[in-house]
Amino acid sequence: MPKCVIGIDFGTLSARSLLVDVSDGTILATSAMDYPHGVMDQFLPDGVTRLEPDWALQYPGDYLECASKTVREVLKEADVKPEDVIGLGTDFTECTMLPTLGDGTPICMLEKFKKNPHSYVKLWKHHAAQDEANRLNEIAAERGEDFLACYGGKISSEWMFPKIWQILNEAPEVFEKAERFMEVADWITLQFTGEEKRNSCTAGYKAIWQKREGYPSNEFFKSLDSRLEHIVDDKMSRDIYPVGTRAGYITKEAAELLGLDEGTPVSVGVGDAHAAVPGAGITEPDIMLMVIGTSGCDMLVSETNIKVKGMCGICEDGILPGYYGYEAGQSCMGDHFAWFKKYCTTSKIEEEAKKQNKSVLSYLNDKAAKIKPGSSGLIALDWWNGNRSVLVDVDLTGVMLGMTLTTTTEEMYKALVEAVAYGKRMIIDTFKESGVPIKQLYATGGIAEKSPFVMQTFADVIGMPVHVTATKEATAMGAAMFGAVAAGSAGGGYDTIAEAGKTMSKGIKETYYPNTENQAIYEKLYAEYKILHEYFGNGQNDVMKRLKEIKSEIRKSEL
Amino acid sequence: MPKCVIGIDFGTLSARSLLVDVSDGTILATSAMDYPHGVMDQFLPDGVTRLEPDWALQYPGDYLECASKTVREVLKEADVKPEDVIGLGTDFTECTMLPTLGDGTPICMLEKFKKNPHSYVKLWKHHAAQDEANRLNEIAAERGEDFLACYGGKISSEWMFPKIWQILNEAPEVFEKAERFMEVADWITLQFTGEEKRNSCTAGYKAIWQKREGYPSNEFFKSLDSRLEHIVDDKMSRDIYPVGTRAGYITKEAAELLGLDEGTPVSVGVGDAHAAVPGAGITEPDIMLMVIGTSGCDMLVSETNIKVKGMCGICEDGILPGYYGYEAGQSCMGDHFAWFKKYCTTSKIEEEAKKQNKSVLSYLNDKAAKIKPGSSGLIALDWWNGNRSVLVDVDLTGVMLGMTLTTTTEEMYKALVEAVAYGKRMIIDTFKESGVPIKQLYATGGIAEKSPFVMQTFADVIGMPVHVTATKEATAMGAAMFGAVAAGSAGGGYDTIAEAGKTMSKGIKETYYPNTENQAIYEKLYAEYKILHEYFGNGQNDVMKRLKEIKSEIRKSEL
Repeated sequence: MPKCVIGIDFGTLSARSLLVDVSDGTILATSAMDYPHGVMDQFLPDGVTRLEPDWALQYPGDYLECASKTVREVLKEADVKPEDVIGLGTDFTECTMLPTLGDGTPICMLEKFKKNPHSYVKLWKHHAAQDEANRLNEIAAERGEDFLACYGGKISSEWMFPKIWQILNEAPEVFEKAERFMEVADWITLQFTGEEKRNSCTAGYKAIWQKREGYPSNEFFKSLDSRLEHIVDDKMSRDIYPVGTRAGYITKEAAELLGLDEGTPVSVGVGDAHAAVPGAGITEPDIMLMVIGTSGCDMLVSETNIKVKGMCGICEDGILPGYYGYEAGQSCMGDHFAWFKKYCTTSKIEEEAKKQNKSVLSYLNDKAAKIKPGSSGLIALDWWNGNRSVLVDVDLTGVMLGMTLTTTTEEMYKALVEAVAYGKRMIIDTFKESGVPIKQLYATGGIAEKSPFVMQTFADVIGMPVHVTATKEATAMGAAMFGAVAAGSAGGGYDTIAEAGKTMSKGIKETYYPNTENQAIYEKLYAEYKILHEYFGNGQNDVMKRLKEIKSEIRKSEL
Repeated sequence: MPKCVIGIDFGTLSARSLLVDVSDGTILATSAMDYPHGVMDQFLPDGVTRLEPDWALQYPGDYLECASKTVREVLKEADVKPEDVIGLGTDFTECTMLPTLGDGTPICMLEKFKKNPHSYVKLWKHHAAQDEANRLNEIAAERGEDFLACYGGKISSEWMFPKIWQILNEAPEVFEKAERFMEVADWITLQFTGEEKRNSCTAGYKAIWQKREGYPSNEFFKSLDSRLEHIVDDKMSRDIYPVGTRAGYITKEAAELLGLDEGTPVSVGVGDAHAAVPGAGITEPDIMLMVIGTSGCDMLVSETNIKVKGMCGICEDGILPGYYGYEAGQSCMGDHFAWFKKYCTTSKIEEEAKKQNKSVLSYLNDKAAKIKPGSSGLIALDWWNGNRSVLVDVDLTGVMLGMTLTTTTEEMYKALVEAVAYGKRMIIDTFKESGVPIKQLYATGGIAEKSPFVMQTFADVIGMPVHVTATKEATAMGAAMFGAVAAGSAGGGYDTIAEAGKTMSKGIKETYYPNTENQAIYEKLYAEYKILHEYFGNGQNDVMKRLKEIKSEIRKSEL
């Protein structure tokens, strides 16, 4: 029987366990389970207590229930005995946080707080702390806080401190009662090992922690609210462990829960997007991993530490230990195409797709692939959901330009795909121009696997080969690799994530090389994109913001 | 039996006769017939001789055949005797021209020239004289010719002299043989009366003729080509008659053709768009008539003579005798909406429309009418077919801006309707700012009659009431009114078009008043439109032209 590791990927809607042969990364079994309470955005579990708009909560018991069921299932499916599992790793959505007692008991489990929404897990996409985020950014800018530069100039409402501050403002009794505020990535480690070992990834990317500088100063927190002055020392921790560190060993209770042996090594947590980097087999610097799904996330580790304009975060040890981890992103990727399908696709196209036994998007991809670059006269700005990198501006909106009376639906679709590729090139060029080298491009995610047209467009626009990784479930695989590192070579695993990544990843499935003819045309089109990007994105014409203000006034007046 | 007049409207695809009670304008009968040869854009009537792209020809015999059939039919239908028809007027598409012998025999009727495409009627939308138009504009600009300012700075390839010049360049034998080059508007008058009496409307708007200055100088024509030096004196005429003039009387041959009495008075011709002005009952200055159909045509008569930037033409006596006639236009109006329906409308909308027993566009209108102005955050530039007024630039293309992931199909449709209204307001504001007063707005045409939503949007955006005229078939009605003026009061008609218009038109069917709340929002949105109009339209960012060049290169390379 081969020695195995388990990776558990805690996503937005479900948890998935992967049982992997530690010697070569072969997936022996996978199992997923939806969270019983899903995302709570209307009511608390009592079905009565209403939530305000923009709220998104979860129920912490769901994570344990799903872990228990899926870990037991993979063991059963692959007929692997608990003693053959040499390590366990987990990854989690981020910043997904909760208030707990000192022993990790969620405040929402206390009878007295069951009806208080602030006692539950705030999911990453809980967007109700925007006021706190705005205020935090203002104050940080006024004070000239250096940390802003590590986060593209802005702290998001999704992150740890705006969420804590919202609790303080709206439910001071929960704030008072809470002895700890934790990323659930770290809380789950605590549940499995009994150890509070906070990881460097979610601390770095979501809690304004930097390896050398630590957290923002107590004065900074005091300037937000005097009650926050000692938040880190009182209710968090300054002990942060690099990803890949062994957090501890499975406790007796966790062993019973998971059906694994007590004493099995467990890694510290890691953010779900970031786990995909080693999962995809990237263990060296200067290779960008593009996760191409509904939105786009780009990650890169480097030996250089340069504050690159408009990136989402730069954190030492944030992705792989020993390197600076860079994260950038596009707010909207597959979401663009889904929007186009929903609102702009004609019945004629639907019928044709049906005839050819294709999905609408796959039919549009095939049609668009046949259109020569530049031949439609169209260009678009991919800002339907704002621009994350490099402009960090949620108030930007989409543009399409160049329509004539003969412009077709598939030409507009192609323009949207090209726009997304221009956006990606803008990120890559910004890294390179800032002095952060990018030598190779890897791609993973649903669109990378399913759409050769989109990937070829990326290669042609960016002018670099795009390597689609062969590893399936790169995120859960990354978690499993961290489990193998928690075991260490002495325990049958590996001593570094680099070794684990090299041995366990499956390499490249397919490479898209730039077509030089298309590349030459895209050079010209990208030059136009840059002009429009600058004009609409950098304050020359803030029409998008003014239109959004008018829209917001009108919509308010209609309520 | 009431005294009657007949108006014959020669359109692009068919001719339509209107039999009208001269005392009050009541329509007694109408009859239309498609031209047997239609628009020839592939082959000559022999079915063998191929035409090049951008050609559009017609067969002159078709006009006579259709006139004969439809005039006889209206008489029969209304049971009116020829002696009760006191006058005949005609209007024609413009510039639709042909080469003839001195007696009006079309060159294409000569056996020797039957296979020569240049011997036929060149329809207004024959676009194959673009090279000649470009060259003419260059030379006129170099020479500093004043006439350019009367035509928005550019002579169109659709107009008389580029078409004549193309004949000279490509078929010098036809040029040689031709003793006359005529607007068919004047040729049809010649056929009915035996008199070559050229009208001031098509001469002014299409043949660079101005009442005071006449045609461009012989030197100018010589600078184009030495063989053109005496083109006006040799093959055209300097005798130009104001619209509303009696051209003469129906000849014996024409009486036989039409089934009317010999000696019936006939007016000089008039361009079809312009005939709609009196047809709609406008006989006084400072009232703009907006013809709102597939494209948009705006006409206005005024006592002031001011060269307004970007208008299609300013001609004394061009529309109504004694006034300066102004013409402006939008290249694309209903065409925008037809494009949107074809390429951007989802099956869901088609199904909903069907359920409600509405056309797709009527369903979209109803949905869009319910959307509050400003609430979508969208804005568009209505340049899908270039911009005629006020930028006179066919190479401009469409823009839509402000899309988010929740933008709906009907919001985009509404943005397109608003864009067309902004374009109209730009024309009206430009007139007013130049010192040409506009006191009232009349609307006619398919969209004016069928779409209250579009008309209300016009009123709200422009900030003036929009009066939809009650006269049906305003164009043919205008021709009939000119027929009544040809008869004169002595003959049972009227002495001036003003009298005819006042007595025979049907007034206003419906008035759309601006909604003050919407108007205030549109003030803000129009300000944004103006900024984008300036940026993309006036050389700040010629991205549209560069994209068109790339497109044209790529398409050529694909041939």
